Amino acid sequence: MRSHYCGQLNETLVDQTVTVCGWVHRRRDHGGVIFLDMRDRDGVAQFVVDPDTAEAFANADRARSEYVLRISGRVRPRPEGTQNPNMPTGMIEVLAKSVEVLNTAVTPPFQLDEHGKVGEEVRLKHRYIDLRRPDMIDKLRLRSRISHTVRAFLENQGFLDIETPVLTRATPEGARDYLVPSRTHAGSFFALPQSPQLFKQLLMVAGFDRYYQIAKCFRDEDLRADRQPEFTQIDIEASFVEENDIMDITESMIRQLFQEVLDVGLPAFPRMTWQEAMDRFGSDKPDLRIPLELTDVDDLMKQVDFKVFSGPASADDGRVAALKVPGGASLSRKEIDEYTKFVGIYGAKGLAWIKVNERAKGLEGLQSPIVKFMENVVEELLDRVDAKDGDIIFFGADKARIVNEAIGALRVKLGADLDLYTQAWAPLWVVDFPMFEADDNGRLSPLHHPFTAPACSPEALKADPANALSRAYDMVLNGTELGGGSIRIHDQTMQSTVFDILGIGEEEAQEKFGFLLDALQYGAPPHGGLAFGLDRLVMLMAGAKTIREVIAFPKTQSAACLMTDAPGEVSAEQLKDLNIRLRQKAKAESTAE
Amino acid sequence: MRSHYCGQLNETLVDQTVTVCGWVHRRRDHGGVIFLDMRDRDGVAQFVVDPDTAEAFANADRARSEYVLRISGRVRPRPEGTQNPNMPTGMIEVLAKSVEVLNTAVTPPFQLDEHGKVGEEVRLKHRYIDLRRPDMIDKLRLRSRISHTVRAFLENQGFLDIETPVLTRATPEGARDYLVPSRTHAGSFFALPQSPQLFKQLLMVAGFDRYYQIAKCFRDEDLRADRQPEFTQIDIEASFVEENDIMDITESMIRQLFQEVLDVGLPAFPRMTWQEAMDRFGSDKPDLRIPLELTDVDDLMKQVDFKVFSGPASADDGRVAALKVPGGASLSRKEIDEYTKFVGIYGAKGLAWIKVNERAKGLEGLQSPIVKFMENVVEELLDRVDAKDGDIIFFGADKARIVNEAIGALRVKLGADLDLYTQAWAPLWVVDFPMFEADDNGRLSPLHHPFTAPACSPEALKADPANALSRAYDMVLNGTELGGGSIRIHDQTMQSTVFDILGIGEEEAQEKFGFLLDALQYGAPPHGGLAFGLDRLVMLMAGAKTIREVIAFPKTQSAACLMTDAPGEVSAEQLKDLNIRLRQKAKAESTAE
Repeated sequence: MRSHYCGQLNETLVDQTVTVCGWVHRRRDHGGVIFLDMRDRDGVAQFVVDPDTAEAFANADRARSEYVLRISGRVRPRPEGTQNPNMPTGMIEVLAKSVEVLNTAVTPPFQLDEHGKVGEEVRLKHRYIDLRRPDMIDKLRLRSRISHTVRAFLENQGFLDIETPVLTRATPEGARDYLVPSRTHAGSFFALPQSPQLFKQLLMVAGFDRYYQIAKCFRDEDLRADRQPEFTQIDIEASFVEENDIMDITESMIRQLFQEVLDVGLPAFPRMTWQEAMDRFGSDKPDLRIPLELTDVDDLMKQVDFKVFSGPASADDGRVAALKVPGGASLSRKEIDEYTKFVGIYGAKGLAWIKVNERAKGLEGLQSPIVKFMENVVEELLDRVDAKDGDIIFFGADKARIVNEAIGALRVKLGADLDLYTQAWAPLWVVDFPMFEADDNGRLSPLHHPFTAPACSPEALKADPANALSRAYDMVLNGTELGGGSIRIHDQTMQSTVFDILGIGEEEAQEKFGFLLDALQYGAPPHGGLAFGLDRLVMLMAGAKTIREVIAFPKTQSAACLMTDAPGEVSAEQLKDLNIRLRQKAKAESTAE
Repeated sequence: MRSHYCGQLNETLVDQTVTVCGWVHRRRDHGGVIFLDMRDRDGVAQFVVDPDTAEAFANADRARSEYVLRISGRVRPRPEGTQNPNMPTGMIEVLAKSVEVLNTAVTPPFQLDEHGKVGEEVRLKHRYIDLRRPDMIDKLRLRSRISHTVRAFLENQGFLDIETPVLTRATPEGARDYLVPSRTHAGSFFALPQSPQLFKQLLMVAGFDRYYQIAKCFRDEDLRADRQPEFTQIDIEASFVEENDIMDITESMIRQLFQEVLDVGLPAFPRMTWQEAMDRFGSDKPDLRIPLELTDVDDLMKQVDFKVFSGPASADDGRVAALKVPGGASLSRKEIDEYTKFVGIYGAKGLAWIKVNERAKGLEGLQSPIVKFMENVVEELLDRVDAKDGDIIFFGADKARIVNEAIGALRVKLGADLDLYTQAWAPLWVVDFPMFEADDNGRLSPLHHPFTAPACSPEALKADPANALSRAYDMVLNGTELGGGSIRIHDQTMQSTVFDILGIGEEEAQEKFGFLLDALQYGAPPHGGLAFGLDRLVMLMAGAKTIREVIAFPKTQSAACLMTDAPGEVSAEQLKDLNIRLRQKAKAESTAE
């Protein structure tokens, strides 16, 4: 039906007759002539319709914004002075010979170039219009290209694309499962997978050796921040490997992806232990674009006569950390108040600070509400953080968890607010994670999942689980966890030990993962893998602000689709088929019975 | 951890030291030496462990079937007389220097080469063992290769891989939906998609122009024959296209796939109207490998004094069809009885037949329980089917639907039983489908789905819907529908007309597909597409007997996974979160309240 996409038209086609199909992006009448900017997925080109071509003119005259047209005509250079060098098609226009209206359009709820004027709700309801924006088409095209490049890389490396079930058994990934009532097994439910974790391990037991899948995963969580109930993982697993094998392959994959898709050569990924990341950045996914670091000052603050600092500095689970911001002395009182509020979100009870106005003047040259309490250590403190005139030093003093979260987040916020970035892309590996994390009651839960192999023997693990390290690794980019993985447990004794430590009894383990424990008996190879969050990866590469921008039909924070109005009501008959009833209804019915 | 896969070892490696990781496939002790056949996903190779290498020998001695080992050694030619030219690695063996036990294995529930001795149930329960069979690995490897080849083709053609939601709204594809209760919207349900149909149409409205996806789809049907509750579609849609565009692209895709993956050059796909397919083969997915055809004999049978034939021959909805089987006169009475039973499955009340023993002898030369009723037409009948000595002619006489199903199925069965195939691969397109099919009460339902464009105007459609043709097309291979598609309705008036004919009122239409009707208003391009059943395609290409053989973790006929024991029970708390309760339980509770 067409000879070219609109975006393909350029000077090389001058004097040729072309046919395009697309949407009326803009229409102007000027000097008795109609100008149509025609849009398709490749771009926009200008068509001129002259009253000489009577039928074409009549059709063009009917055409409104977003009408679907098929236009043929001759390409010609734009007249001197009307060229637009900012548009790929800006040097030419097409003199239309025929204009065919393929479909009409009522006035859209918003103009594409005015999408910012309407709320996201309106745009989600009419997603098929919002997706017409060239920006959105480009983002989803980039996503397609990323998937394809990743697949090509993995196929090349001998990974097999194997589909795992979507209707499966509830798994223990921590989040809430989406459930699907079974009709044929009354009272039973399938769960949608939170990840293909167990299946990919079973594929290794089966000997597939190298597996990958770009898989939909599901978590029925409250959608804080930027999450979706269904999301996509690049899921990878291999046998007879150690940490370095998986890290090398996946690092190459990401590096090749950036090179091919963005023409960006990423630096080699540094490796940092989890402990170092927490100590220096207060985070297990540090944004290394920002040249700020937390400095431990526990030893100094133990010596001050200021409970707010000396308390956490002396407590086992406490921490006092300083964050020096070069040039930060120019922050206003109001700005500091804002940051104080900000760290409050993370539970910090305040934000102490010292402005270094003129170090040479000693205490005189410092400005701070708290420096009076720490005169005995202030010089050593300033030396330790290498404070210079014009700097500000912020402090967090609390439980280590709170200090890390609050000051870690403050560091990231300051980096953005003050535009401190030293580079566009800062990838790294975080390794040597603890095996478990303890809640406030000291109960241990897996930091990753219960199939992660520890870096020690079952005996050593049992002896001191709280301090055991795991064989897990996370890939972090610009402060975002791109992917995480580990070497898995392939030994049944080790797996039982871990369940034991987690307080999962034999019966519960059999009930929940009996099939995995069984499988480990029958000759499981050493194996490990990694899973990337595709949505987040695409978001970063596309420079998008939320993952909703890189998902064709996303859901809202309350897990609804405004376009299709899902979830929706279903008939009583359907529920009866599934052997369930609504809780509210059930009450009413029981009264009637 | 290894230098080679087992299957890669061959004569070119003689005298080199290699390391493999894999499973003990077979172990033999012979003359004080241990022979280990080591298996990985690439094949099997023979390792020899000598008592000289004491540690290696001790480990090899421990090793049992399915132990996981790492073995290093030197490749050497097998001694004269012990070579196995049927094995890719059969000319060499490896003299082991070190044997490391990576994991032990208890005795598996069945030996891989004796899998036929246990029921499918045992194999599904221990799927990770069943998948170790080289045959299964090869099938899933083929599947991976097919997906990859299809993707590469479509990417090359400018199709964008776009993911559509899995948690969505109930759609009207005819089958039962799987439902997912929403926690955040109490009393509401998501449905799992039966296909991405509506979303891909909306992507066309959004201007993506060329879309594809290898998508999971879900149908909660009773699993007769060879179906799975979740299955995979190669889903394709394009804008500004007509039937031929989609058919050309997808035919090229399948042809290229067969060439690249199977090294098979498929013939050009003939096109056949639905009517012709039904008339000649009694099926809309005729297996053209079989050189048998149905012949219409209504006109002749109207003239006979035999109600069983003359009735259907004269009825509007009746049909009498003859199926001549060359050489079939040698079928025994018992065989014919079996075929009579067989057509009974499809509702045929009997199976009339005429054996042509010696045509030259006239009626004398025929053998048949019914020929006495049709002496007046028998010569014309024999001429029409071109009967030769030794042939048998079967008859179906009933409602056309029953005759087509019964004799169509008989044709396929005879083709298989008598091995009548004339070629390995017989693809074709079936086109010009009716728009609707009528049930016994004359109520119309869509033959494909209600978004299929008719081949006529809305007015013509309204005037005679029962005889209207659609712009649908099916790709058929060896009697299996590989894929089906159509040009879709892109005009709101046409869509309303179709809903009208189907008895879907305006309110119901708005309620169910309001978002699609809305979208059609805002400038929908002409568009169409096709969806292939990937499982079935792989099954055919792999020469597998069921789709379960080409799915890593399939479900049983009752939609259960024997390995994970899904679906399973869930906690009362989970149900409460979802605002549902079990029907049975609800009663018990209501008594207690």
